[in-house]
Amino acid sequence: MSLRIIATGGTFDKHYDELTGKLGFAESHLPAVLARTRMTVPVELEQLPPLDSLDMQDADRARVLASCQAAPEQAIVIVHGTDTMPETAALLGGAALGKSIVLTGAMIPYEIANSDALFNLGCASAAAQILPPGVYVAMNGQIFTWDNVTKNRAAGVFQPL
Amino acid sequence: MSLRIIATGGTFDKHYDELTGKLGFAESHLPAVLARTRMTVPVELEQLPPLDSLDMQDADRARVLASCQAAPEQAIVIVHGTDTMPETAALLGGAALGKSIVLTGAMIPYEIANSDALFNLGCASAAAQILPPGVYVAMNGQIFTWDNVTKNRAAGVFQPL
Amino acid sequence: MSLRIIATGGTFDKHYDELTGKLGFAESHLPAVLARTRMTVPVELEQLPPLDSLDMQDADRARVLASCQAAPEQAIVIVHGTDTMPETAALLGGAALGKSIVLTGAMIPYEIANSDALFNLGCASAAAQILPPGVYVAMNGQIFTWDNVTKNRAAGVFQPL
Amino acid sequence: MSLRIIATGGTFDKHYDELTGKLGFAESHLPAVLARTRMTVPVELEQLPPLDSLDMQDADRARVLASCQAAPEQAIVIVHGTDTMPETAALLGGAALGKSIVLTGAMIPYEIANSDALFNLGCASAAAQILPPGVYVAMNGQIFTWDNVTKNRAAGVFQPL
Repeated sequence: MSLRIIATGGTFDKHYDELTGKLGFAESHLPAVLARTRMTVPVELEQLPPLDSLDMQDADRARVLASCQAAPEQAIVIVHGTDTMPETAALLGGAALGKSIVLTGAMIPYEIANSDALFNLGCASAAAQILPPGVYVAMNGQIFTWDNVTKNRAAGVFQPL
Repeated sequence: MSLRIIATGGTFDKHYDELTGKLGFAESHLPAVLARTRMTVPVELEQLPPLDSLDMQDADRARVLASCQAAPEQAIVIVHGTDTMPETAALLGGAALGKSIVLTGAMIPYEIANSDALFNLGCASAAAQILPPGVYVAMNGQIFTWDNVTKNRAAGVFQPL
Repeated sequence: MSLRIIATGGTFDKHYDELTGKLGFAESHLPAVLARTRMTVPVELEQLPPLDSLDMQDADRARVLASCQAAPEQAIVIVHGTDTMPETAALLGGAALGKSIVLTGAMIPYEIANSDALFNLGCASAAAQILPPGVYVAMNGQIFTWDNVTKNRAAGVFQPL
Repeated sequence: MSLRIIATGGTFDKHYDELTGKLGFAESHLPAVLARTRMTVPVELEQLPPLDSLDMQDADRARVLASCQAAPEQAIVIVHGTDTMPETAALLGGAALGKSIVLTGAMIPYEIANSDALFNLGCASAAAQILPPGVYVAMNGQIFTWDNVTKNRAAGVFQPL
């Protein structure tokens, strides 16, 4: 079993720029995060252009799909912004790739106190290795199937439809 | 689906005592950790006496077994010291309780920089909800069955026998 | 010797709101920060309305001045946004209050990784107790007098005029 | 003005060894800490053998003294274990070097949650630049002279004699 992790940006990977005072993207935290996890399963990290998921266009989602299709691994974790995570999950789910693909992200950036990023990545990494082929979302300690998940933005949690 | 988390101490929950300069046990970090995870599945936290797993005696392991037997939940995560995690897993595995029980812990305490605690808890929480009944160890991003896992102390990683 | 700490917001005290994904103000971090410093000198914390210093108006600066005038303490630290810190320092400096007043802040919010907030607060807390009456800025490990300091925004550092 | 920082180990710089489960010394945190402070005053970091201050012998203190004597800088901060900080301060104080020397340390290691290390370093860095020649201890947000300071081990705080 080996694992591919596809980084697409999102809140998980946001970085505070001290010159502008804004949260944006710089070097991904994922290499440091993966070292911290002490994962011994072989992990391949693939970094796509980091995006706020509200800025994701069709072409960006198509690129995520292409990466999943091209991946030699059977188990894939996608680190993704939360706001449009269900949309990307739906695109991947409809493609029926025969792989175990789990999307996850964070409500608080990895570098900010009290972040859920590391926990969510743990959920997703285990789920991608255990679950049968399909597309899933791992957030709030739950596993959702791609066709039965939505983000409740007012409450800041994921839930079934 | 609801989840029981049984805290038994271990490296995960160690606390630095600034008066003695030693790592020991104080109030468990688990309540704060669980809030941080933003888990929406109902979680019951059960705190057993916190122990370094090298100090665990037969009676301590029997108490963990009793807690698993008494638990109404089908999915159980046990936060445990790493050094004797396989021994406790073996005791639980032999009892064939018909529940999905996942032991996890940490190589670095939750409160120390670069800790794997939150990631491991994520792996275990997902695994306990997904896996069929049985007893497992979730460490290093991998899921091991109770009868095929050992801690390689020299390397600081868990591996199959 | 006792110390007054006047919190006015600024980058130091910004908080990430996970529902909006924006940095703003919530409960001040200062009470937790002060506990963490283990200061044994008596400290009085005064919280003014938290503001990004770019949003500070004349009335806001006048309120800071009034707080300094009313303070029974001889040593005062003001936690302030960096962008207009020299302006507030100049207002206080011109008032010649006969107290040792040190403004400080942070380039990275206290709750974000790699923050300079705690270090800067240490510099300011020591300086306010040691320096003769006057108004100073403590940033980048240096002490500047109110009439000879500017923020180099391109470089993100404070320097003499 | 330039600043020399002499690292001697102590609680400030302790590191958790995940293979042994013990706190000891590895690479010093000081280079990363100094980058984090964003100090713009020229800083020279001198690393002496890292020691728990309870293990410091006369020869170790003599080495600290020699470093202070040899330093071209007028302002010196010494990062030191707390348990025998007053003893080293007394040795340096008796030597009357004509420099501003401030000893500091931490009750909680830099890498452990809720550490006072960064705050204390801020206090000491400002104090060393401001104070007249002499030897001082900066802990608990206070500045003590070398001949009037003791650690109250039961309370975990520094206080005058």
